[in-house]
Amino acid sequence: MTTRGTTGGARPAPYRAEGLPERVTVYEVGPRDGLQNEPVVVPVEVKAEFVARLAAAGHTVIETTSFVHPRWVPQLADAAELLAAVERVPGVRYPVLVPNERGLERALELGVTEIAVFASATETFAAKNLNRTLDSQFEMFEPVVARALEHGLKVRAYVSMCFGDPWEGPTPIGQVVEVGRRLLDLGCFELSLGDTVGVGTPGHVAALIGAFGGPERLAVHFHDTYGQALANTLAALRAGVTVVDASTGGIGGCPYAESATGNLATEDLVWMLHGLGVETGLDLGALVETSTWLAGRLGRPSPSRVVQALSKAPSEAPPKE
Amino acid sequence: MTTRGTTGGARPAPYRAEGLPERVTVYEVGPRDGLQNEPVVVPVEVKAEFVARLAAAGHTVIETTSFVHPRWVPQLADAAELLAAVERVPGVRYPVLVPNERGLERALELGVTEIAVFASATETFAAKNLNRTLDSQFEMFEPVVARALEHGLKVRAYVSMCFGDPWEGPTPIGQVVEVGRRLLDLGCFELSLGDTVGVGTPGHVAALIGAFGGPERLAVHFHDTYGQALANTLAALRAGVTVVDASTGGIGGCPYAESATGNLATEDLVWMLHGLGVETGLDLGALVETSTWLAGRLGRPSPSRVVQALSKAPSEAPPKE
Repeated sequence: MTTRGTTGGARPAPYRAEGLPERVTVYEVGPRDGLQNEPVVVPVEVKAEFVARLAAAGHTVIETTSFVHPRWVPQLADAAELLAAVERVPGVRYPVLVPNERGLERALELGVTEIAVFASATETFAAKNLNRTLDSQFEMFEPVVARALEHGLKVRAYVSMCFGDPWEGPTPIGQVVEVGRRLLDLGCFELSLGDTVGVGTPGHVAALIGAFGGPERLAVHFHDTYGQALANTLAALRAGVTVVDASTGGIGGCPYAESATGNLATEDLVWMLHGLGVETGLDLGALVETSTWLAGRLGRPSPSRVVQALSKAPSEAPPKE
Repeated sequence: MTTRGTTGGARPAPYRAEGLPERVTVYEVGPRDGLQNEPVVVPVEVKAEFVARLAAAGHTVIETTSFVHPRWVPQLADAAELLAAVERVPGVRYPVLVPNERGLERALELGVTEIAVFASATETFAAKNLNRTLDSQFEMFEPVVARALEHGLKVRAYVSMCFGDPWEGPTPIGQVVEVGRRLLDLGCFELSLGDTVGVGTPGHVAALIGAFGGPERLAVHFHDTYGQALANTLAALRAGVTVVDASTGGIGGCPYAESATGNLATEDLVWMLHGLGVETGLDLGALVETSTWLAGRLGRPSPSRVVQALSKAPSEAPPKE
C-alpha cells in the first residue's frame, strides 16, 4: 500500500469550521525575522525583489527590515539601502523593527510610517536579549513609542517568550499580561504574542488570550520548534485572533539544524486558512513560487511542508483559492 | 534579537482546553506504516527491538507488521520472523495489516489476535492500490473480516484518501461515510480515517466526523505532507475522537524528499497532548530516545520537530509529564 509520488495535485476543499474569523491578516515577517536568522546574508537587490514578490502575492503587511545594530544582526545591516530600494505598493504596510531611539531616528529619516518594538516576557531573556530587567526594559520603549506616536507612526509591540523560555520554564500568564498591558498602555496599536522557543500548546494559547480579556489588539507569533505552530494558530483563531505572524517558507530561527524551522511557514498557514474558508487575500501559488525562488538564494530547501510538497510536483497546479 | 541555541530546555505547561477527551490512545504505526515506506530495509532484530522499546515507552497498541505480499512491500517481508521474535507485553496489542484471505491464514498460524484491513474512499485509489472498484473492494474484505471474527480476532479498518486524492480532488464526504459504514457493518471494531496525501484541514475533519454522526468507533490517521496533521488532530479531538494514529519520529511516507515527513510524528502529537493535559500513558523522553536510536538505524534524521529539538540538546531534559 504505497502512495509514493502521488501527493502533489490534491487540493484542500474549503470547509468552514465554527467560530472562526471570516478574514485573517497574515503579518509577513520573512524579510526581517526570517532573514535575520539565516546563516546566508542575502544581497540588498534580492531582498528588494523578495519584498516586491510578497506584495505581488497579496500581502498587505510586510515587516521589511530592522534597525538593530549590525553588530547583533549583520544580515540586516543594509536596512537603509533596502528601504530606499523597496517600491511601495499602495495599501501595503512596510513596518520595520526598531530597538531604541537611535533606530527610530534612522527610521524617521527614511520615511518609515510603522515600526515595531520588542519586549521580553521573562526576566532572563530581558537580561540576555536587552540587557535590562523585566521592569526596566520599559525605559527603553517609552521614549521610542512616545516619539514615534508624536510623528504619527503606528507602533506594534512584540513580546518574546510568552509561553516559556529555556531558563525559567513556563512563563506565568499573569506576567505576560502585565508586560503586554504596559506596552498597549504606551499606545502600541497591536501586541504580537511570541512563542519564541515554540513550546506552547493550544490550551495555553487559549488561556493566555483569555487572560487578556479577549483577542482585541492581539496578534500571535508562533515558532514551530516542537511542531505546534499551526495547532496553536488554530486555537488562537478560535479565540478570535485575526492577525497571525508567519514567515515565507518557514525561514528563520533555525537554532539547531539547517533543515529545522523556526517560524510558522506562511504557506502552511495559508493552506489551513483557505481550507477553513478564511479569506486572506493571498495567492498561494505565488507564495510557493516566491519561497522556491528564495530557497535557491539561501541555498537550502524551504522548511515549509506545503512548499516542499508543491515544488516537487511542478507539473501539478497549487490549490486554487 | 537572536535566540539561537536556546530552545532545548523549555517545557510545555499543561493547560487543558475545553471539550477535549481526558485520555487519548496513540495507535502507533511506526513499525508498519513507517518502516514500509522507508527506503532502508531494517533487519528483523532491529524491528523487534523497536517494538520492544515502544512497549517499554508505554504504548498499548503497536501495529507491528503487514502480510501484504513482499513484492509490494519488501521492507516487511520478514513479517513471520518478526512476530516470532516479538516478546508480547501483557496489556499491549500487536495488530498486523492483512490484505486478503491468504494473509489472514498466515496471521492465524502465527497466533495474531488483532488485524487491520485497508480500503479506499476513492475509485481511482481503489483501482491503483487494490485493483478493484470502490464497490467491489468489499468482496475482498468480507471473507477476511468474517473469518477473522469467527476466530475471535479484533478487526480494524483503514480507509485511505478520506479527504482527497491526487486524481479526483476532494473526496465527497458522503462517499467516505458510505465506505466507512460498510466496513463497520462487517463487524470492524474501529475505523481509521486516513488523510493519505495530507491535504485535509480542520473544518473538513470536523465535517467528516459530524457526517458519521459522532466520534464513536472512529480513529484518525493524518499525514503531514502539507503541515496540517497536528491541527487536524486537534479538530478531531474537539469532535470527540480518542484514538489517534501516529508514527515514531514521523517516519514513513516520504513521497518526495528524504527529509519530508509522511505520518504525524508520535512525539509531536504527545507534546501537544501532554501540553493539553490529556493523558496518554506515554513517556515522551523514552519515545524521543527510541526515535533517535531508530534514526541512526535508518541513516537519516527524524522528521519529528520534537525529536529534532530535544535530541540536539542532549544536556536538556525532555518535558516532564
